[in-house]
Amino acid sequence: MKENALELHERLKGKIKVELKEDVTSYEELSIVYSPGVAQPCLEIAKNNSDIYKYTMKGNTVAIISNGTAVLGLGDIGADASLPVMEGKAVLVKKFAGVNAFPICIDEKDPKKLIEIIKSIGTSFGAINLEDIAAPDCFEIERTLQEEMNIPVFHDDQHGTSVIIIAGIINSARLLKKDISKLKITLCGTGAAGYNIAKTVHKLGVEQILAYNKFGVVNSSNKDKNDQSVNELLEKNIINDTDKSTLAEIMEGADVFVGLSAPNIVTSEMVSKMNKDPILFAMANPIPEITFEEISKVEYGVFGTGRSDYPNQVNNVLAFPGILKGLLETDVKVMDEEAKIVIGKAIANLVTDDELKKEFVLPNLFDNRVVDVIVNEMKKL
Amino acid sequence: MKENALELHERLKGKIKVELKEDVTSYEELSIVYSPGVAQPCLEIAKNNSDIYKYTMKGNTVAIISNGTAVLGLGDIGADASLPVMEGKAVLVKKFAGVNAFPICIDEKDPKKLIEIIKSIGTSFGAINLEDIAAPDCFEIERTLQEEMNIPVFHDDQHGTSVIIIAGIINSARLLKKDISKLKITLCGTGAAGYNIAKTVHKLGVEQILAYNKFGVVNSSNKDKNDQSVNELLEKNIINDTDKSTLAEIMEGADVFVGLSAPNIVTSEMVSKMNKDPILFAMANPIPEITFEEISKVEYGVFGTGRSDYPNQVNNVLAFPGILKGLLETDVKVMDEEAKIVIGKAIANLVTDDELKKEFVLPNLFDNRVVDVIVNEMKKL
Repeated sequence: MKENALELHERLKGKIKVELKEDVTSYEELSIVYSPGVAQPCLEIAKNNSDIYKYTMKGNTVAIISNGTAVLGLGDIGADASLPVMEGKAVLVKKFAGVNAFPICIDEKDPKKLIEIIKSIGTSFGAINLEDIAAPDCFEIERTLQEEMNIPVFHDDQHGTSVIIIAGIINSARLLKKDISKLKITLCGTGAAGYNIAKTVHKLGVEQILAYNKFGVVNSSNKDKNDQSVNELLEKNIINDTDKSTLAEIMEGADVFVGLSAPNIVTSEMVSKMNKDPILFAMANPIPEITFEEISKVEYGVFGTGRSDYPNQVNNVLAFPGILKGLLETDVKVMDEEAKIVIGKAIANLVTDDELKKEFVLPNLFDNRVVDVIVNEMKKL
Repeated sequence: MKENALELHERLKGKIKVELKEDVTSYEELSIVYSPGVAQPCLEIAKNNSDIYKYTMKGNTVAIISNGTAVLGLGDIGADASLPVMEGKAVLVKKFAGVNAFPICIDEKDPKKLIEIIKSIGTSFGAINLEDIAAPDCFEIERTLQEEMNIPVFHDDQHGTSVIIIAGIINSARLLKKDISKLKITLCGTGAAGYNIAKTVHKLGVEQILAYNKFGVVNSSNKDKNDQSVNELLEKNIINDTDKSTLAEIMEGADVFVGLSAPNIVTSEMVSKMNKDPILFAMANPIPEITFEEISKVEYGVFGTGRSDYPNQVNNVLAFPGILKGLLETDVKVMDEEAKIVIGKAIANLVTDDELKKEFVLPNLFDNRVVDVIVNEMKKL
């Protein structure tokens, strides 16, 4: 492909468009699609609110909502600058799951006000995908919306990422014949994704998790610096307490490194001190915690990143289209740890023993079985 | 067409869908449409906000926004029940003007809060179409949003209706050889549309306007009952003061009746007491102020309604698709009285002298010259 990203975005001027499901070509059709005929479904919905699913787009449409406070690896770039990402997300939801998705970027950072705004605009949508909203606000926003809205609310940065990491860890352990319950995991980054991954891999049976973030190693001596969400994990011993203080120290002897932090903060030397056949998912965007070139200097078990130009792309797009479709079409309304593990396992199982290798632990992004498998698993929950 | 409105809405489950402008079929394309390539347009917009028009859907997308407080002739049926209408509006904007439109129904009646919500969700849209928001709140909402948002805000119930009535009055006067400046107009209904029509026909040169609403004839003796917006028109003598007190009395001797009120409140006897060759636009939905059957008992000049099964459908769809396209593509940002008159005249002029007759004073809704004519007129403003 010769075109770069700026050229493509300038040529298309928007990656999505709105289309008629069926053309309107006569006065008679107009009078059914619009006034006066349209009054009939309006009155039915006014009488019986759930008829909105029967007569409108609601049941097959999701909102991709962001306030632009934690966009990709770019940080707080604002609602306007987040729009290309949210359009891209809408493209992927439609492409992979056939679900209509529309980006709503909201210029509001106050979580209470943001909650009120999102609550007020739910009519057109059958589910909400929260995207790129900074931690810790994202936790309160998601929880409150789940309690107060009558449609499912999903935060992809948390749950989508957890599902893929679960799938990646399961298949890496399968390949390398490691016992999941005995894995030692080093988590680098405790924002939305890191927080959720800790909870989910703990539920999967992983008992040894150490964590590192911008304040250093998470432990009882630096509790005052961390968000309540992180301290909650420490208090519950989901993140283990430790007297170590550097990332290098907590990577020593670890089986798994999960990075959701900053570029180039891991060296091949640090990898060489991990356990035998270490598994690394370095997902900082666009430059991972350790590059393919750097890690290739030493022995390792599995290496995955968010990039498509390295092997093992760890990409939420394997998860969120199917999950959003499932939230619309099944009775699952909240992605709890159990749901994430079931879906992660199902995605992992799509890779056969013959296919599974160091460079291929996750299905191809264009594998059209993935969405169906996710929806089917959600139907069973 | 054998299908009725409920059947069509249930079969389609939404009259619009979201589609990709261009398919994504490879990892490489994915990496340009989404992460990591999408970071490039994000960073450009973060540096220079106006680049959002260069790299995103904003410049060719409008929001169809309602809070469901004044839907069609149905009244305050709420945000959810308004969705079929807003979807229908989106269909028409796309069909006739090729502009992407998406319905946002907002569950909020407080005008100040509604303003804050709409202001916060402007990112994805190049213009906003306010729809079916009750008067008098709609006036404050529109004015404040025009002042505080950096995209055009258009209230179709006011401006779209005015444009069509202007076109209808011009061509009816042309057909019946009446002098517009000497027309006596009876306005029945002083909500969003009625208020705006009074201001616009006054600007067109009509000096004699009497008005009637649910409190009776608008005059200085019932000022305390009316909204500030209506009293403003009375104070400025746009609506003339009068000592008459019934609709029948203020229709006596009138040249034009404009109805935006309630079904069947005008009788053929009342029409018979109007001036010679009376012009009636009876737009209550779905049942007009006087039916075709009832008016056919007496002589009249021109009769139009909102219905497609009577002659002369007076339908905003002649105006709003072109106006929204013009708001995106020209320097016109506010539809003032001058703009509405220019556009109304241009629409009227599409009907040739040969075509103009009692049953045909407005162009066909499917006349594909209408949108171009409107956009061209807006370019000249």
